[in-house]
Amino acid sequence: MNAILKGLRVVEGAAFVAAPLCGMTLAQQGADVIRFDPLEGGLDARRWPVTAGGKSLYWAGLNKGKRSLAVNTRSPEGQELLVALITAAGAGNGIFLTNFPTSGWLGYDNLRKRREDLIMMNVTGNPDGSSAVDYTVNCAIGFPFVTGPPHGAAPVNPVNHVLPAWDAIAGVTAAMGILAAERHRRLTGEGQLIKLPLADVAFAMTGNLGYIAEVQVNRSERRSSGNYLFGAYGCEFETADSRYVYAVAITRRQWEELCKMSGLEGKLAMLASLLDVNFAKEGDRFKAREAISAVLAPWFRQRTLDEIEQIFRGTGVCWGPYQTFQQMVADDPRCSTENPLFSMIDQPGIGAYLVPGSPLQFTAAAREVPKRAPLLGEHTDEVLTELLGMSDAQIGKLRAARIVGGPVEIE
Amino acid sequence: MNAILKGLRVVEGAAFVAAPLCGMTLAQQGADVIRFDPLEGGLDARRWPVTAGGKSLYWAGLNKGKRSLAVNTRSPEGQELLVALITAAGAGNGIFLTNFPTSGWLGYDNLRKRREDLIMMNVTGNPDGSSAVDYTVNCAIGFPFVTGPPHGAAPVNPVNHVLPAWDAIAGVTAAMGILAAERHRRLTGEGQLIKLPLADVAFAMTGNLGYIAEVQVNRSERRSSGNYLFGAYGCEFETADSRYVYAVAITRRQWEELCKMSGLEGKLAMLASLLDVNFAKEGDRFKAREAISAVLAPWFRQRTLDEIEQIFRGTGVCWGPYQTFQQMVADDPRCSTENPLFSMIDQPGIGAYLVPGSPLQFTAAAREVPKRAPLLGEHTDEVLTELLGMSDAQIGKLRAARIVGGPVEIE
Repeated sequence: MNAILKGLRVVEGAAFVAAPLCGMTLAQQGADVIRFDPLEGGLDARRWPVTAGGKSLYWAGLNKGKRSLAVNTRSPEGQELLVALITAAGAGNGIFLTNFPTSGWLGYDNLRKRREDLIMMNVTGNPDGSSAVDYTVNCAIGFPFVTGPPHGAAPVNPVNHVLPAWDAIAGVTAAMGILAAERHRRLTGEGQLIKLPLADVAFAMTGNLGYIAEVQVNRSERRSSGNYLFGAYGCEFETADSRYVYAVAITRRQWEELCKMSGLEGKLAMLASLLDVNFAKEGDRFKAREAISAVLAPWFRQRTLDEIEQIFRGTGVCWGPYQTFQQMVADDPRCSTENPLFSMIDQPGIGAYLVPGSPLQFTAAAREVPKRAPLLGEHTDEVLTELLGMSDAQIGKLRAARIVGGPVEIE
Repeated sequence: MNAILKGLRVVEGAAFVAAPLCGMTLAQQGADVIRFDPLEGGLDARRWPVTAGGKSLYWAGLNKGKRSLAVNTRSPEGQELLVALITAAGAGNGIFLTNFPTSGWLGYDNLRKRREDLIMMNVTGNPDGSSAVDYTVNCAIGFPFVTGPPHGAAPVNPVNHVLPAWDAIAGVTAAMGILAAERHRRLTGEGQLIKLPLADVAFAMTGNLGYIAEVQVNRSERRSSGNYLFGAYGCEFETADSRYVYAVAITRRQWEELCKMSGLEGKLAMLASLLDVNFAKEGDRFKAREAISAVLAPWFRQRTLDEIEQIFRGTGVCWGPYQTFQQMVADDPRCSTENPLFSMIDQPGIGAYLVPGSPLQFTAAAREVPKRAPLLGEHTDEVLTELLGMSDAQIGKLRAARIVGGPVEIE
């Protein structure tokens, strides 16, 4: 948490990863993000991972620091409440984030009638508006055929990455897009609809990283090279104590340090002569990667992780241990309260665990302890009073008619 | 490209993926991003992938739309030029993006003496300032042990993802951070130093997605489930024509559509009775994933990709084909000029290929054709004249003394 975006208010109607991550990211920089959901919870209210008691760790992770409004989105009164909230007057208001199909009452054209300078961010699936999720985008992009063990040119044995990377990139891109549009509105008074198709995020990044040019210019395509870093030298090694480490030599200095600290300079120089390559060139390190690994692997296999760490510490060798999620939590000070990124936070119904704030450290907005996720509808009354000026009696009527509700513990 | 950030100027001293991607992302929204590099090119000037002639497709991809200044960064005169450029007067100026170790002349304290409201974004490796790259961060985060074929709980056979996902997320996060700081400066007049450690980006996202809570609350950790989607149902299938597709049922509606369109409703209902589970629950779909796949796989194997597409088109089934990079370029209209995201751009020394613009579609800033990457030092004279008011004679002296240079074609 920090307060760099103080004064900005975003109404979020969203589910799953990309759009809720966008809202959470803005909330962690101090924006007031109000997420609305149906009275029984949104599509992602029970999403895995869950606790033994069925509480969603996913919800807790992607809704940190937001306020929650539970509302019957099918009732005309509920819809009118939401339109009023989304288009509320005030300089910091009038920002709507959604990944729902938006037509009718929630469409930009309808909302804009009530606030002309509305900023609406619509995260969609495909550029034509059809649905797509991280998994159906990822399979189209080429990466699964080059992930995992090498298998030649045939497109077999696809390996999906597990991180929903496209969702994550899209979520942060949407947050950036909202800030760009807010700047534009501040300078010109003009609002707008912004569309961000998940598939375009993925195709654009794939192009940015050179994969399309490899096909069209080089008339070739990347093949799997296992865990080898492409285009320079990077490889995983087993240690004497059955751990794994990754060592990288992208720059010439990283290569020279790896040669020096392993004491294998002489052998690696012989290897370069043998293969007629120049290891000062990153491409030559890639071409000779298997031979280099054959020289380096025994060195790693004869040493424990601790021994390797003692040899590499404070040098220019770029390396790190592989860790399971449990090892990461148990052993890595970067994943502990020693790192100001993290705080122990108690999440109602779940318990206390390490919760990350924003990785951005603004010196003009001090780091604060991250805020937990809300219960469904935890802020229903507060939001209706504060933003729509409703009285207790008015809210009472809405509650009696089951137009609004909460707080609810989702089971 | 679009012009939503018109009027913003960023000076970039950076290399590799995260920070150059940040600059490129801002440039594609219309910011004037001036990247400086040494006269012989930066550390990433020759980075792979490269063309047969050795030109870097990587450089072309991550520096689109920037202006390039080639300068001897070791000479006092070159350093003074850069300090003047970074701290130039003017409301849109005074934003510096870097991932270099910044001490001495390039340190925030030094730069701030010349422009108090400077915004400086420093993308670092580890939170303690030590070096880390995507590959050495990724191995620490747990994902490689849950990627690829299932192998039980033992942390063996790590599989790295190939997409530099942490770099990509960090690059966009840095762009968002700069816009947040620029908003703060506009409102308060205050500049600042922002730090963004790559490792914190990764640890934070891992926490956001619930992996840390699984360890600390559930006392367990995620295991590899191959290409299965975690927590609901998603699986890859082979087709009759030896293609692969991915089909997903995260929501109940997606599940019902998959059952209906495959005509396997009856069998899947029998399966639910047999296993005593309720497929309306996403978690039950995950628990019974292998049995579900046993029912669905023959259906896919008996049909070609075309046949499957005809059956699923226009329905609520969420699915997509796996494609290699070549298939993506050859067959997918989303990766063609049919998609306004892409334009055919001629990159000097490389040739013409499909280049993506920004995936963000701002209605208040029309989509423009993306701009190619500059040659090293292509804008040296232009930048010195425009920003530092230098005369031809002054620039001539700097060129003669080899303080500035370019344009240069990197070989």
